Amino acid sequence: MRAELIMIGTELLLGEVVDTNASFLAQRLAQLGIDLFYKSTVGDNLTRGQGILELALERSDLLIISGGLGPTDDDLTRDMVSLVTKRELVEDPKVEEDLKAWFQERYGANTKVPEHNRKQAFFPKGSKILPNPVGTAPGFWLELDGKIVIGLPGVPSELQTIFMESVEPLLQVKSSGNRLFTKNLNFVGIGESRLEELLQDLLIKQSNPTIALYASGGKVRVRLTAKASSERAALELIEPFSKEIQDRTKGHFYGFDGQTLEEVVGLQLIRTGQTIALAESCTGGLVSNLLTNVPGSSAYFLRGYVVYSNQAKQEDLGVPEEILQKYGAVSPETAQAMAEGVRKRAGTDFGLALTGIAGPGGGTSEKPVGLVYISLASSGDTIVQRHLWRGTREQIKNRSALAALHLLWKQSRP
Amino acid sequence: MRAELIMIGTELLLGEVVDTNASFLAQRLAQLGIDLFYKSTVGDNLTRGQGILELALERSDLLIISGGLGPTDDDLTRDMVSLVTKRELVEDPKVEEDLKAWFQERYGANTKVPEHNRKQAFFPKGSKILPNPVGTAPGFWLELDGKIVIGLPGVPSELQTIFMESVEPLLQVKSSGNRLFTKNLNFVGIGESRLEELLQDLLIKQSNPTIALYASGGKVRVRLTAKASSERAALELIEPFSKEIQDRTKGHFYGFDGQTLEEVVGLQLIRTGQTIALAESCTGGLVSNLLTNVPGSSAYFLRGYVVYSNQAKQEDLGVPEEILQKYGAVSPETAQAMAEGVRKRAGTDFGLALTGIAGPGGGTSEKPVGLVYISLASSGDTIVQRHLWRGTREQIKNRSALAALHLLWKQSRP
Repeated sequence: MRAELIMIGTELLLGEVVDTNASFLAQRLAQLGIDLFYKSTVGDNLTRGQGILELALERSDLLIISGGLGPTDDDLTRDMVSLVTKRELVEDPKVEEDLKAWFQERYGANTKVPEHNRKQAFFPKGSKILPNPVGTAPGFWLELDGKIVIGLPGVPSELQTIFMESVEPLLQVKSSGNRLFTKNLNFVGIGESRLEELLQDLLIKQSNPTIALYASGGKVRVRLTAKASSERAALELIEPFSKEIQDRTKGHFYGFDGQTLEEVVGLQLIRTGQTIALAESCTGGLVSNLLTNVPGSSAYFLRGYVVYSNQAKQEDLGVPEEILQKYGAVSPETAQAMAEGVRKRAGTDFGLALTGIAGPGGGTSEKPVGLVYISLASSGDTIVQRHLWRGTREQIKNRSALAALHLLWKQSRP
Repeated sequence: MRAELIMIGTELLLGEVVDTNASFLAQRLAQLGIDLFYKSTVGDNLTRGQGILELALERSDLLIISGGLGPTDDDLTRDMVSLVTKRELVEDPKVEEDLKAWFQERYGANTKVPEHNRKQAFFPKGSKILPNPVGTAPGFWLELDGKIVIGLPGVPSELQTIFMESVEPLLQVKSSGNRLFTKNLNFVGIGESRLEELLQDLLIKQSNPTIALYASGGKVRVRLTAKASSERAALELIEPFSKEIQDRTKGHFYGFDGQTLEEVVGLQLIRTGQTIALAESCTGGLVSNLLTNVPGSSAYFLRGYVVYSNQAKQEDLGVPEEILQKYGAVSPETAQAMAEGVRKRAGTDFGLALTGIAGPGGGTSEKPVGLVYISLASSGDTIVQRHLWRGTREQIKNRSALAALHLLWKQSRP
């Protein structure tokens, strides 16, 4: 079965909306083992939409149309499908009832369905209605001459609900054969180009699994995708490469798929029964925020201080005034005093501190924007790292947070 | 000039990559006043790519192709364009030199350009080369029979650089006429459906400017888009509607375009010379992190406490043990004591506190997951709000943070 996505909506061609429907549908189709060969996007224009649909009906077996099912004059999907398939639009009495109930529930018992909303009850003759439990526009499923045309509303939550509840069960019956399985390897503290060099031969030559590298926001991941008839067969294809890549990247690979570094750190702290407190200056609470995004983090994260002023550094963490005066707030000495101070005050196993210049202002030639000191105090010793990041204020905060978690991850290993 | 985007890459049809190139190109074309009528996505397949290109050359005047310019066997854009336009591929001596220099700089003076990289120096005959200052694959610009075909590498940073530096200046000469201008209105503390009700007539009827509503992550914005020959003419079309919408939504409209609530709050605190300190439990540092994302926030944000344990609430904020024992950590009384405590300890004008149950664990029938108290202490009085959010742990944290900033915004008005 060759599938094609048709995304309808002028807003998609203006570039201000990121089309999450397309990636959602593409992912689900891949998991169902259905090959997606084309994705077309067209505005709210009857002639051009018709043209796209005609072409899609020629070259594909399964058409999934997203958008254009709303009540406005711009919503033309019903008309397009009706014209191209030569099936007239007929009103579905059940949908009409539901629309009436929806409006009366919201606007009172005597409310009539507004004229422009009534068209939402019309569908190409022969359509199976796909109920929409989260909105007013149901979808439809139309079979003709061995082809399937599916129409779904463009609101992502509605499209996703209808797809998962109604479309997938129907498609599972129709499709068969190999499916795609993926495994992601997540890395920290290694750049995209260095990782690319280490894996260059695999990236270029491998075909099943394919091996690809993605980088964003200072994080890098490697995705292995295998085509196989079962998850077990796919994993057998993936495993040798997964191991090989881990061997080549020791100290940087930290987890699979959606696993975050803060989760891995949290699991480690729980396993070893260790606790942590944070002292943040330039990151302004970001590291605490990341650590506390993990459910159950209150077991090891006891408290955090955002010490934006020198006074706070002294009062809350006991950083000696002499150190601040002699070396400045952004210095290895202050970072160390912050880490040791917060560890002592909170009574935790680890004290983690960050101080630096996030910019865009506040830099000097001696202490430029992007200079960040990270310190980790534990019962044994206190480590201090120096970093010099480039980027915007938020990028500098993010990279500093990631480096701090990386340090904590390495040092809290059992 | 009718434009069409052709995105090439199997990874785009697997749905694991969000296609940021498409929205970037769509936005820039809109700003240039060039109508984008179609966007097509196709995998790394010669036959299907050829088919798409043939069709695009028939129906559009300007084709922008993204991806498929890399060194691997899957990179087929050159071949597709060559076949469809019947222009043979010829090696560009300058690009060949650059490639050699790039490899020798990285891997030593005697390095030869690997065979598979050499194809990156070949382009359809007659192409103008578009230099790539940030990678190895240059783009190309090919004119034939009044049509323009542009090929760009798929790496977003490379595509964007080449487009802005080389393509835009060339397109500006070719295009003319009306351009699109947009203005966004940002809202807080009002749901999408309520806003939709307030603006329903405008959303359905307006055509220039068009008015559309977007919601994500608890934030809602309204976008006004006008088509006009100049920015001034566009603003004249937009202004009356912008005012009308602000009139209908008092207390919820807080800023335009990319402006964030934390920026608006920050500007207000700077204008009034007021300062703030934070005490966060359930949000775990998120509010501090947002406030400190704003450059210059150290002028009004003095410190923050992430008090995840009862001991921290007592030691750092002076919350009385009796209150914690009698009412619990998640209670209006504790929220108030936290807000007043942090204000006193930090010596600021405002003390803002949050305590609640972010979940997924820790909820009871009396105090369910999503129950959050927000308190704001000032010289005059102390406000306490109760919220009950639904959603994941991160959604509950985000909504609480937004509500806290909303409260601070309203109360710190001059």
